[in-house]
Amino acid sequence: MTRAVVPPDLKGEKPAAGVKVNLYEDVAARLSRLIDQGAYKTGDRLPSVRALNKQLKVSVSTVMEAYRVMEDRGRIEVRPQSGYYVKPPLTRLSEPNISAPVCEPMPVSSEFFLSRLWRDSLNPKLLNLGAATPNPELLPLDKLSRMLASVVRSDNSLGSTYDQPPGCAPLRVQIVRRMIQAGCTLTPDQIVTTSGCQEAVSLCLRAVCRPGDTVAVESPIFYGILQAIESLGLQALEIPTHPRDGISIEALKNAVSQNRVSACLVMSNFSNPLGSCISDANKKSLVALLERRQIPLIEDDIYGELYFGSERPRVAKSFDKTGNVLLCSSFSKTIAPGYRVGWVAPGKYQAQIERLKMANNLAVALPTQMAIAKFLENGGYDHHLRRIRRIYERQVAAMSEAINRHFPQETKVTRPTGGYVLWIELPAGTDSLQLYQTAIKAGITIAPGTVFTAQPKYRNCIRLNAAFWSEKVDHALEVLGKMVLSLKK
Amino acid sequence: MTRAVVPPDLKGEKPAAGVKVNLYEDVAARLSRLIDQGAYKTGDRLPSVRALNKQLKVSVSTVMEAYRVMEDRGRIEVRPQSGYYVKPPLTRLSEPNISAPVCEPMPVSSEFFLSRLWRDSLNPKLLNLGAATPNPELLPLDKLSRMLASVVRSDNSLGSTYDQPPGCAPLRVQIVRRMIQAGCTLTPDQIVTTSGCQEAVSLCLRAVCRPGDTVAVESPIFYGILQAIESLGLQALEIPTHPRDGISIEALKNAVSQNRVSACLVMSNFSNPLGSCISDANKKSLVALLERRQIPLIEDDIYGELYFGSERPRVAKSFDKTGNVLLCSSFSKTIAPGYRVGWVAPGKYQAQIERLKMANNLAVALPTQMAIAKFLENGGYDHHLRRIRRIYERQVAAMSEAINRHFPQETKVTRPTGGYVLWIELPAGTDSLQLYQTAIKAGITIAPGTVFTAQPKYRNCIRLNAAFWSEKVDHALEVLGKMVLSLKK
Repeated sequence: MTRAVVPPDLKGEKPAAGVKVNLYEDVAARLSRLIDQGAYKTGDRLPSVRALNKQLKVSVSTVMEAYRVMEDRGRIEVRPQSGYYVKPPLTRLSEPNISAPVCEPMPVSSEFFLSRLWRDSLNPKLLNLGAATPNPELLPLDKLSRMLASVVRSDNSLGSTYDQPPGCAPLRVQIVRRMIQAGCTLTPDQIVTTSGCQEAVSLCLRAVCRPGDTVAVESPIFYGILQAIESLGLQALEIPTHPRDGISIEALKNAVSQNRVSACLVMSNFSNPLGSCISDANKKSLVALLERRQIPLIEDDIYGELYFGSERPRVAKSFDKTGNVLLCSSFSKTIAPGYRVGWVAPGKYQAQIERLKMANNLAVALPTQMAIAKFLENGGYDHHLRRIRRIYERQVAAMSEAINRHFPQETKVTRPTGGYVLWIELPAGTDSLQLYQTAIKAGITIAPGTVFTAQPKYRNCIRLNAAFWSEKVDHALEVLGKMVLSLKK
Repeated sequence: MTRAVVPPDLKGEKPAAGVKVNLYEDVAARLSRLIDQGAYKTGDRLPSVRALNKQLKVSVSTVMEAYRVMEDRGRIEVRPQSGYYVKPPLTRLSEPNISAPVCEPMPVSSEFFLSRLWRDSLNPKLLNLGAATPNPELLPLDKLSRMLASVVRSDNSLGSTYDQPPGCAPLRVQIVRRMIQAGCTLTPDQIVTTSGCQEAVSLCLRAVCRPGDTVAVESPIFYGILQAIESLGLQALEIPTHPRDGISIEALKNAVSQNRVSACLVMSNFSNPLGSCISDANKKSLVALLERRQIPLIEDDIYGELYFGSERPRVAKSFDKTGNVLLCSSFSKTIAPGYRVGWVAPGKYQAQIERLKMANNLAVALPTQMAIAKFLENGGYDHHLRRIRRIYERQVAAMSEAINRHFPQETKVTRPTGGYVLWIELPAGTDSLQLYQTAIKAGITIAPGTVFTAQPKYRNCIRLNAAFWSEKVDHALEVLGKMVLSLKK
């Protein structure tokens, strides 16, 4: 069955006023929505380029670009001399359900296992699907090295000066400029630079909690955050979290009414490990709920710039009117993890964060801060981001498709719309720690689900990093799939 | 009166077996001791070069070198065609007494003032006598910049790799090699690299204390340590400290028998602000006392390589048999404060420190770690240190002498044998905070004594940085001296 007529809703919707969207992305998004809604089914032919050109009043090249990105994303295929056709869904595997942790504060006790996971994952002899490191080939390292070399050779004071909080001013200026895209109007003196996002989060927890206090977090949640919570003697209160929409506002509302909660911490955009992204409406509700209850929100946006869609998602901080949101991020996923340059916009906790930063380690190294500032200023960061977003999107799709081919049918897999990790729910009873041991012997690292919670949960889950996609990874997934099958028995 | 005969004790003493001492330093040290003991008094002529050459059986050039360093140190003067004469003591001012803090645990509440002190001191428009920053002209910045440029350009993985505790291996190898001179035999896996010494100290406090716990410290003590104590909700128990010999072991023994103390923290070599250096015998007693009582010792040796004498002083850690000493240091005073590279040898707390480092901020930036490692390996660090030690020694002597000229006679001043700061006790009743305000108006920063304690003490004391000695500083001291006189009235 083919349909060449443009359905009404393809014409109808306009992007919201004031939202800057590439036209081709807009066209692609509308077509994709029609596929999602069943207006075009697997195998259907989509409208021709000329038909869309006429009916949507957009240029031929815009339509072709729209079809190109849809092809990249695995939604359609081109049949030469025939047209564009809807491909089967990338994966026949279902999406995991919303998580169901026990909603009670619990002490965190990260196992000795974590340091092993980290060491194994960074071992160059093993294939790293375990740690969420970015692909070095997708980092602008040559340019950055030249900039670092140039800044230190032209200014010796970068070596001789103790920087002090809030940190390197030119870097803070660049950060503030970038955050406009995320809906945030900040001034440079509302930023404090840190040694990566981990330090930003850790300082925020210290600023708003005292030992013994409870922090509400998404579940599953990045283990580094659990480590920070543990190291400060805090308790984690895990909240049900949807694999696509993030933290459940309803569940959070219940939890904070039943428990004394000192902070809430979310990875608002493309969380690690779920890849979930909280909708604007929910971000707004989240900020309002926590503001009402006077509970500070610590927002980790480290993956925010790695969106696959047409728009940079907003940060929850953009809905913050009172300074109750502490926004954390870094350049470790997009520029250089080895430089350890991150930042926090601490809202009304500015003075506390500056003092804690000073007591913690005074300041971030100046040469690396300045090199990142130079790169942001004139290294072509936006161009770089456009390129790597497209690649990560393709790789996430490819890995998802490979899991579909190699893993048992009961497997569930997330559909992230940004970042580069997948969260996989293996058939019930599969022991991911056992899988870890077996996989290591085959030269493959994975991250077992157990490290993403303080509860005895997610043992049948794993997180995989799609940043290093290659034939070799496809083969590794085949091997892993067989291991999962044999563990099931 | 002149005496050309070499007294017996000049011949007698030999350096202890196994201790490597430059021969000329040995000769200089013996002659200085004779002056200290009154065998040669102000104005006395010292033995001729030829006399010493014969009687000590050392070369003419060794004797001349010995006299040269004594002249540098302001102990003797050369009168042409006559010989070497004992100069008047550098300062007629007395040394401060041993401190007398209240020996009770007290919460620390660092004033808002500290951030102002830091900001003012780093303001390039003001003359910095306030912050203990090293003189940029005495840092090997050109060479270091070239090394940083070279390491990042030859190895992109420094940007793309998340380092992990214990940190950059080549750097840890260099640290271990250097510590042999301080009497310590460590292996690289007993070192964890940190973002400066401040982070090392802060992680150590977190490893061994819980909020509410008490830490015994010297008094006065570097304000950064008090900030770390405050930020972790700990209490400071200040122990009487001698301006030359450091912490009183007797007083500490009493204090730990009367209080529950979770850690003891000392700046063993050339403390900031006193410049005190704990003797080997006392280091040994200190380690034994704390070991017996199962109280971890956190040792801050950041100034240890800036000794004026002939030998690198030992660290207390060198007497540690059980891993009870956590030794902290950094390269901020001798290579580059802006690089934020420090380290800790945590003894039996290795695993805790590694975990805390990971939770705090994962790791130190790799490019700066590697540049420091390269510099230590083949940048001529020892040559560099020999040069800056001599200069700092001269500058400390010059500043001491200028204070003697410009300040009221009741002023007391320390006699540091390393580092580059002086602690000055102004006439009773002089308000150093008022002096601070007046000095700022004249473009001069000082560090008021009040920031070096958690108690209402040292208000008539200031710390001055001698690292930037120049005519201009001499003039600034004249101005400060007049201010002190007028405040006295």
